[in-house]
Amino acid sequence: MILNDMLDSIREAEKIAIVTHVSPDGDGIGCVTALYKAMNKLRKDVSIFIDDDIPEIYRFVPYTDKITKPFDISVDLLIAVDCADSDRMGKAKELLRKVPKSINIDHHISNTLYATMNYVDTNAASSSEIVYQLIKILGIDLDQEIAECLYVGVVTDTGHFMYGSTTSFTHEVAGDLINNGASVDKISNIIFHNIKYEKLKLIGRVIDNMELYFGGKVAYMEISKEDFLKTNTKLEDVENIINYGRDIDSVEIAIMLVEKDDFVKGSLRSKKYVDVNKLAKEFGGGGHVRASGFLVKGSINDVKEKILDLIKSEVDE
Amino acid sequence: MILNDMLDSIREAEKIAIVTHVSPDGDGIGCVTALYKAMNKLRKDVSIFIDDDIPEIYRFVPYTDKITKPFDISVDLLIAVDCADSDRMGKAKELLRKVPKSINIDHHISNTLYATMNYVDTNAASSSEIVYQLIKILGIDLDQEIAECLYVGVVTDTGHFMYGSTTSFTHEVAGDLINNGASVDKISNIIFHNIKYEKLKLIGRVIDNMELYFGGKVAYMEISKEDFLKTNTKLEDVENIINYGRDIDSVEIAIMLVEKDDFVKGSLRSKKYVDVNKLAKEFGGGGHVRASGFLVKGSINDVKEKILDLIKSEVDE
Repeated sequence: MILNDMLDSIREAEKIAIVTHVSPDGDGIGCVTALYKAMNKLRKDVSIFIDDDIPEIYRFVPYTDKITKPFDISVDLLIAVDCADSDRMGKAKELLRKVPKSINIDHHISNTLYATMNYVDTNAASSSEIVYQLIKILGIDLDQEIAECLYVGVVTDTGHFMYGSTTSFTHEVAGDLINNGASVDKISNIIFHNIKYEKLKLIGRVIDNMELYFGGKVAYMEISKEDFLKTNTKLEDVENIINYGRDIDSVEIAIMLVEKDDFVKGSLRSKKYVDVNKLAKEFGGGGHVRASGFLVKGSINDVKEKILDLIKSEVDE
Repeated sequence: MILNDMLDSIREAEKIAIVTHVSPDGDGIGCVTALYKAMNKLRKDVSIFIDDDIPEIYRFVPYTDKITKPFDISVDLLIAVDCADSDRMGKAKELLRKVPKSINIDHHISNTLYATMNYVDTNAASSSEIVYQLIKILGIDLDQEIAECLYVGVVTDTGHFMYGSTTSFTHEVAGDLINNGASVDKISNIIFHNIKYEKLKLIGRVIDNMELYFGGKVAYMEISKEDFLKTNTKLEDVENIINYGRDIDSVEIAIMLVEKDDFVKGSLRSKKYVDVNKLAKEFGGGGHVRASGFLVKGSINDVKEKILDLIKSEVDE
């Protein structure tokens, strides 16, 4: 049984490395830091590796100061969390070849089962839910720090309990984390109510220039180099702005085109029925049925014209 | 014991009226509709009265079509939910004088205990949490409709589990409601991701014209008659826009001034330390320490000047 093998491997290991994916999000960061503290409680020699920078917004999470970029180290056990495939670890992937044992903890349906022990629960709304269970099964007491780390993972990966993946177990976990000291007020203020003025100005500008097409079914947004300059923002500030378009009552597809050097970065979101993965493929991109993207050489105007032309038949039905 | 008296009164009553406050919100509407179904299951003759219109966004909630405006009716028992004082019932307040028995179910600390039986739990994050418990204690089985009604109340009154009032019990309730058929995806799409294009345009305009003062500690926003005209919006569309200002990382106070005939409607929000109730009182208004408002005769420019002058000393410390 995988679970028993995992527990035995953790109990036997002296030196453990924990990794999560590049472009780390709240769930990945919450998992590795919670596991760091938990393994410390088991008196293990632990390191956390992430082959990327930690976003400003997550630096309040306990033990994020312990995260280092991959380097050459010899450990008994590697625990990879929230990585659907090993490439998502970036350079930390190298560790996989070197360790005698590895554990892959994840909730993505696309997981490639790359470790010696794979514990993938696709019903879990976040990897933090799985790590929560693992910590419980190992008999490690929750404390305020572990609770805070895991709560960050739970709320970010469920869109604060709004995504359909949220189950009654998600709420059970959240309740237990609050009982163990996770502060709802503090964490939601830091993560969800803490926007930069510059980004807000960019949002205002994008909304102001937004256009609706095809009877309001398509929301079109764009950000030019000039928009970045005028609002003193950069590419990373674009994140999630597309949701303002998707959240309009009449809209089925939201399009966001962003000017980047000689390229156009496109993002597509759909609400109910349009397969935007198929649309993104027309531009050499891809993703999911309801969220996809592409990067294509050209001008915003050319891409806009082509994409509206393609979308026409999708929403005209 | 109040609880036993309440249960006895409900069991004995044949005709029951349920009311909630004017300007009904998700919690008030969720409570009265859940109670309507629950009382029906006990084979009571039930009516729901709200002395106001039901906002468009809540009309999907089961049994909102059963809600009528107050009229002259003779009942054995009145159940008022989520009303801090009897004036909040509007004309439905008249029923209080006529009924032999009344129950006041609420979670507001300012509750004036106006009924013959008062069940006020200020630790509850929503009145829906209290109604949930009452339904359980009465031995009424939850069903999908009751779950949906109460889930709407729980998520709206806790800012979708983000306010500090959210407890582990809140999550326990939410989990149980999901288990009984409340759809996370459906309800969050309707309530939280369903904005009118016109309102979004108003938001874009307000953000575009937003100004920061006092080293970024104060966000100032205004909406003129012209803004309403240009975006084809009205006063009710202003709701919650002030949060865009409050959510800026550097901001302690957000101000929103709205032009309405010869008056200025002011709203104030603070994040951590400024008492905006005190500030609103200077303009004849009031409210809470972190959220207050006022209505004053004059021009936006005059009010703006006066309020920035008053605030100066609050944020200069």
